[in-house]
Amino acid sequence: MTETVISSATSEVKIGFDRPFVIIGERINPTGRKILAEEMKNGDYSRVETDALSQVAAGASVLDVNAGIPLADEPRILAEAIQLVQSITAVPLSIDSSIVAALEAGLEVYQGKPLLNSVTGEDDRLEAVLPLVRKYGCAVVAISNDEAGISENPDERFDVAKKIVERAADHGIHYSDIVVDPLVMPVGAVNSAGRQVVHLVKRLREELRVNTTCGASNFSFGIPNRKGMDAHFLSMAIGAGMTSAITNPLHEEVMQGIMAANVVMGHDNNCSRWLKRFRQPVPEGDSPAEGRGGRRRRRRA
Amino acid sequence: MTETVISSATSEVKIGFDRPFVIIGERINPTGRKILAEEMKNGDYSRVETDALSQVAAGASVLDVNAGIPLADEPRILAEAIQLVQSITAVPLSIDSSIVAALEAGLEVYQGKPLLNSVTGEDDRLEAVLPLVRKYGCAVVAISNDEAGISENPDERFDVAKKIVERAADHGIHYSDIVVDPLVMPVGAVNSAGRQVVHLVKRLREELRVNTTCGASNFSFGIPNRKGMDAHFLSMAIGAGMTSAITNPLHEEVMQGIMAANVVMGHDNNCSRWLKRFRQPVPEGDSPAEGRGGRRRRRRA
Repeated sequence: MTETVISSATSEVKIGFDRPFVIIGERINPTGRKILAEEMKNGDYSRVETDALSQVAAGASVLDVNAGIPLADEPRILAEAIQLVQSITAVPLSIDSSIVAALEAGLEVYQGKPLLNSVTGEDDRLEAVLPLVRKYGCAVVAISNDEAGISENPDERFDVAKKIVERAADHGIHYSDIVVDPLVMPVGAVNSAGRQVVHLVKRLREELRVNTTCGASNFSFGIPNRKGMDAHFLSMAIGAGMTSAITNPLHEEVMQGIMAANVVMGHDNNCSRWLKRFRQPVPEGDSPAEGRGGRRRRRRA
Repeated sequence: MTETVISSATSEVKIGFDRPFVIIGERINPTGRKILAEEMKNGDYSRVETDALSQVAAGASVLDVNAGIPLADEPRILAEAIQLVQSITAVPLSIDSSIVAALEAGLEVYQGKPLLNSVTGEDDRLEAVLPLVRKYGCAVVAISNDEAGISENPDERFDVAKKIVERAADHGIHYSDIVVDPLVMPVGAVNSAGRQVVHLVKRLREELRVNTTCGASNFSFGIPNRKGMDAHFLSMAIGAGMTSAITNPLHEEVMQGIMAANVVMGHDNNCSRWLKRFRQPVPEGDSPAEGRGGRRRRRRA
């Protein structure tokens, strides 16, 4: 069973087929957050600090750190943000940038073995990012698009993932250090988007033996009640074998879906984490005396 | 692809692998409902009427009708309840009793092809119920327990289901007229209960080619936040291939899970049912202008 190990200076997280789902907190990202972008640009990381602590408190076991601010010195800001976050939390980080120099600046200052986010199947990206993965001995998120963009055909996306895994092997990188994002389509536009994910996660596990991740909220793009849909999309993706996601642990419904999925998968021993979260207060009419539901009660009658 | 067809005098419901999940409304059941039991015993079916209409309005496409009242004339009451429900709704019914004479009384008055609920793997039950299934040409719920009770070993429960399907074949009953309930264990007691369901649904589909159903709320027996768990257990069971459940469509969270699962499975074309239910009002900050979530927005940056 494949395990992707990432770490901070003091702690280790394993993403794996037989383990609880790993939540990578997505909040430390200035994209679409004007105030945060302005603050980070000016060296004010107070909001980064708050976002780090609140996400860990809510259940993130890894934090994604992104400093993508237009016209800013992204490598410097990303490195500073990473040092700040590592100084206040023990969780491993995902170093997130589309700029290679920023990825390297982050790797330079990082303590432990991070998750590098990300490499795509584009040749120039592969040749720029994979040597960094090798040099720093980190794990990497592989996004299954390439020069041709994002294919709507899931099997073409699988082929891109396969290419990345093979190219990584050429660089001496083991498949267990690759976490594939099979790219989730918006179901409002692609009716088979959910089935595609189930199909891809299965192929990625069985044929490439890799762990998987996704940005789950893409699925619900353009439809109402997004958090309700995201929560069930994620629990079903976990049922299909997805092993991590970049998501917001502060969204109550989404967290509940992930926690329930861990119970259903048998990855929450004695339901202890579920019990810890929901035991108090016990809702009325929910006591064991109520019995096991209609069927069982009927059988006893 | 197996389809189980049931009908009323005027409408037909198909339970099938490639179809939207079928909700069998569980409410018309006096077990644990003292007032309803008393009323039904006295020939007052006003609450049965309300329960029928409200469940259909909430999304049930089949209604279970049970008249299991201790020391009452169950065959007469069940037949009367069925006639009443058939006079006010067009949905097919599940005729639910553990008493063979009551099942037969229900079948006698039923218009269309009902679902008979249920037969077990016990020899005397098989020989009492299967001839009724054959005589009336109905479909039947097969519950995978036998003389030895309910096995905690899922493969033993599979064997019981297999025995029922084989015995039914001896009676000239096609497997497409059998809907197997693999029996859901409470996860608070059996940590592998969720994995068992995934495993069994897969075996039942692939080896016996039968449709499946369950009383989903058994899963959450004894743990807190039962409806939250039931909702995700059901959506994950649907992801694993479960095709129907006997449940309460008035539970908002559970219905949301089933509707989301239909979307994820590609069984809600253009998300039209999801949109119909959730389009108004659009929650703040949930407009398409918000973009597709962090990852996609970041890529554009």
